[in-house]
Amino acid sequence: MNLAQQLQACLDNKTKPVGSLGRLEALALRLGLILQSTTPELRAPQMLVCAGDHGLAARGVSAYPSDVTWQMVENFLAGGAAVSVLARQHGIALTVVDCGVRHDFAPRPGLLVRKIAPGTADALDGPAMTDAQCQTALANGRAVVQGLPGNALLLGEMGIGNTSAASLLLARLGGLDIRDVTGAGTGLDAPGVQRKIAVLRQVLARHATATAPLQALAAFGGFEIATLVGAVLQATQEHRVIVVDGFIASAAVLVASRLDATVLAHCVFAHRSGEPGHALMLALLRAEPLLDLGLRLGEGSGSALAWPLLVSACAILREMASFEAAGVARAATEVQPT
Amino acid sequence: MNLAQQLQACLDNKTKPVGSLGRLEALALRLGLILQSTTPELRAPQMLVCAGDHGLAARGVSAYPSDVTWQMVENFLAGGAAVSVLARQHGIALTVVDCGVRHDFAPRPGLLVRKIAPGTADALDGPAMTDAQCQTALANGRAVVQGLPGNALLLGEMGIGNTSAASLLLARLGGLDIRDVTGAGTGLDAPGVQRKIAVLRQVLARHATATAPLQALAAFGGFEIATLVGAVLQATQEHRVIVVDGFIASAAVLVASRLDATVLAHCVFAHRSGEPGHALMLALLRAEPLLDLGLRLGEGSGSALAWPLLVSACAILREMASFEAAGVARAATEVQPT
Repeated sequence: MNLAQQLQACLDNKTKPVGSLGRLEALALRLGLILQSTTPELRAPQMLVCAGDHGLAARGVSAYPSDVTWQMVENFLAGGAAVSVLARQHGIALTVVDCGVRHDFAPRPGLLVRKIAPGTADALDGPAMTDAQCQTALANGRAVVQGLPGNALLLGEMGIGNTSAASLLLARLGGLDIRDVTGAGTGLDAPGVQRKIAVLRQVLARHATATAPLQALAAFGGFEIATLVGAVLQATQEHRVIVVDGFIASAAVLVASRLDATVLAHCVFAHRSGEPGHALMLALLRAEPLLDLGLRLGEGSGSALAWPLLVSACAILREMASFEAAGVARAATEVQPT
Repeated sequence: MNLAQQLQACLDNKTKPVGSLGRLEALALRLGLILQSTTPELRAPQMLVCAGDHGLAARGVSAYPSDVTWQMVENFLAGGAAVSVLARQHGIALTVVDCGVRHDFAPRPGLLVRKIAPGTADALDGPAMTDAQCQTALANGRAVVQGLPGNALLLGEMGIGNTSAASLLLARLGGLDIRDVTGAGTGLDAPGVQRKIAVLRQVLARHATATAPLQALAAFGGFEIATLVGAVLQATQEHRVIVVDGFIASAAVLVASRLDATVLAHCVFAHRSGEPGHALMLALLRAEPLLDLGLRLGEGSGSALAWPLLVSACAILREMASFEAAGVARAATEVQPT
């Protein structure tokens, strides 16, 4: 039997009707395959929140001013943001990476400064970043993950304007109309969304030839997404479990999966975001998310909320009794696993 | 401002776009209202697994033999069942109540023997229990909850044949066709489900006048459901948070809600079960469950899986920073809460 068959046999032999733990069983199978074990154990989970600013934000594509990016980084580090609270609840270590915030942070524990520049360039004027900047961000993401302990990486991000970058990447790499993949972000009203769509349509036209994954990434940004792409590629190589948050983190996974097709087998998609493009993104990635709670905050809040389900899936494999061990009778109709 | 308004103002003032935590915010509001606090804290959660056997099981309505009820009770107590593993993961105390299992258990910690009889009577021959037995089971459920610490009760159950009782209660109290609310339970094949529907249709006809909630409960059973009804009524009076598991636990809540309409405001529905009647049950109760993972195990496994989301919702209220405290700018368009 190969590992997938062994894992399925383990699950079928637990004291429960076959398949009765539903998608938790599929999750257990996936985690067993990533961690290469029939008794997988998640160790030292790491929440990586990559932050960066976007030149395009000056075009009014967000309900919030760019300064909120650095203010929220301070909030993450002070422990008052949603992701801080949720990571603390679940014993997930939190690392914030300044990938390109328009602010100079005082050094402190939990903050890594891997700043490419103080914000990307305006993607309506030219590429958001140069190819060299893009490569540096990818390398930064790889190096950051190399330095983290544990076998699970939870993705998070912060960057005013970054739903625009995610929508642009999805439209270009997924061949979708920008109108269908653009939403309110942090809370634009309906006319605001229409203005955002108009701006993003211009950006796409400006970069009509940027069709390869890294070209698109450099054209649309941002530094936090590029750093996450590097992190995802590295985590895949190291056989870490990657917990994907919402729309922006999924955009990073989309780019990474076009560079390395094995990325997707290492990902667990935490939730379906309230941002309308996310459902299309998940369909493109053939991903079935665990939660569907209308979250649209980002930061890694969804990854953290879904995390205990991953722990449960591993615990089912490691700790549940088999029919034989527990002395429980099987269903009359049930085929005995061999 | 009343408490609901205070809670909403607290949520709107946290450092995140208004409403961006989606249904977690509605959950936080509900928990605040139940626990009567803008900083609710869940204390000493109690998983109550009520077990009982069903006379109707002899009619072949389940894929498993009745002996599996007591065997699984042993498994719960030995720590090898799904609910045991998940309760342990989340620090939820587990109490198993023998409400009417066809087996004599050796006494041990974590087991309460509140046995009405060794299984209900066959509901096709007459009522599953007498009115007096039903009253005793309700009183047992109330007394058990009175003896438990904490402010949150998670519902679980075990009883071969009890999806039949739940389908009967839903059909009768919800005015639904038995065909639409009957499923495979632990794993009947398609002809088995058809036989189950035929038996349940006869049972409904046999008890055509049992239309009041307690009459229906006595007619269809079981002892574990009746005990859960008492537990739910008591937990409501004590303003505990009630976490409702799947199809059978929801049937107990359905009965309880017909006896005390305030029950539903104290309930959090953990998940939408793979058992097809559950979606109709949830619609009848106007409940929006937290998870939708195709679980169909019962035991309280779904309540336990959803539990960390309740803890998160309280933590958001208690621990997240406000815009003012964190020095984060608001959206330009946002109305300032007063």
